[in-house]
Amino acid sequence: MAKVDVPDIVISRLPRYLQTLNQMAKEGMHTVSSSDLAARLRTTAAQIRKDLSYFGGFGKQGTGYPIYLLIEELQKILNLDRIWQVALVGAGNLGRALAQYPGFPRRGIEIALLFDADPNVVGTQIGTIPVQHVDFMESEIQDQGIKIGILAVPAAAAQQIADRMVSAGIEGILNYAPVTLILPESIHAMDIDPVLQLQTMMYFIGED
Amino acid sequence: MAKVDVPDIVISRLPRYLQTLNQMAKEGMHTVSSSDLAARLRTTAAQIRKDLSYFGGFGKQGTGYPIYLLIEELQKILNLDRIWQVALVGAGNLGRALAQYPGFPRRGIEIALLFDADPNVVGTQIGTIPVQHVDFMESEIQDQGIKIGILAVPAAAAQQIADRMVSAGIEGILNYAPVTLILPESIHAMDIDPVLQLQTMMYFIGED
Repeated sequence: MAKVDVPDIVISRLPRYLQTLNQMAKEGMHTVSSSDLAARLRTTAAQIRKDLSYFGGFGKQGTGYPIYLLIEELQKILNLDRIWQVALVGAGNLGRALAQYPGFPRRGIEIALLFDADPNVVGTQIGTIPVQHVDFMESEIQDQGIKIGILAVPAAAAQQIADRMVSAGIEGILNYAPVTLILPESIHAMDIDPVLQLQTMMYFIGED
Repeated sequence: MAKVDVPDIVISRLPRYLQTLNQMAKEGMHTVSSSDLAARLRTTAAQIRKDLSYFGGFGKQGTGYPIYLLIEELQKILNLDRIWQVALVGAGNLGRALAQYPGFPRRGIEIALLFDADPNVVGTQIGTIPVQHVDFMESEIQDQGIKIGILAVPAAAAQQIADRMVSAGIEGILNYAPVTLILPESIHAMDIDPVLQLQTMMYFIGED
């Protein structure tokens, strides 16, 4: 399938469709219409139909889709039909929370490697994951062929660790440090910064 | 200023502009062009100029903006010229990490209230913040006039706590639970779910 034609913004919406469909399935629903899904997601049925039309075969307006088929299809499209191993750097408060987040294994994500630089933390375990010294990061990532890294380090260390991840073969970085990383075009980088989202809210709430 | 005319998507980009400008100021830069800023943010100068044109007075193409003025302007637009108090619900691993996140106080956000239902946790302190029983959530939020809530509870509890937040007067909810909340139109809700972002990456990386 020529996936190059699908806009990034469409891809970025698919995980949320999948999450909501899983929720609906858990609630005991068997079929879903694009307007049912749209209502949950505060979007339009037209948008959902257009997004899904890139991948073909999800039926047409007015008819309900079998939820389990749609879930299966989306999982295949997103390459979720496998376990993804991830390297996590930073074992502070946030890193520790991420290392133990039950939502990762439940959705096919395994924190396979965990690194920190603090001698008081290196050598300990967080949950079942040993904390290794960040000096071993590149070699461990290469040995295990890991493609995705999570950055949970302080802002001042983030760019340097990100550069080292890239040199070790990492292709996707989820960055929790509150900095805008400078990375090669080929790297799939995304940021999680609760402050940026809260600031967007503050614009709207401050005017009330 | 008639802020109703500004599209939400434009507002959602302003915090990132602000963050990058702060980074540039820290690096010792004094002026910035829209193309400098665009290069850092992997966007176009035209996009940035268009976004900022909603608010007027940032100069025009080709001339550099004084960074400190742009920072001040953006802070005013986003209502960041004050401390924002926030109620956090959930004192598990994630809630504990959030309660101690130095990036909040550093950027004007104070976790003023912290709630949990676990009797082993209620009555303890996390950092300097006492953990209160979630039964007191509504009254405390009302007493302190808090408008923003952060949800760091398990998926199964999220909708119910969100409903209670809304009934207590919360206008904005940052939701870390991996569920799509059903909320009144008037509520500014945003989700943070690292799995959704990782799944978007997996689409691209799985094809390499």
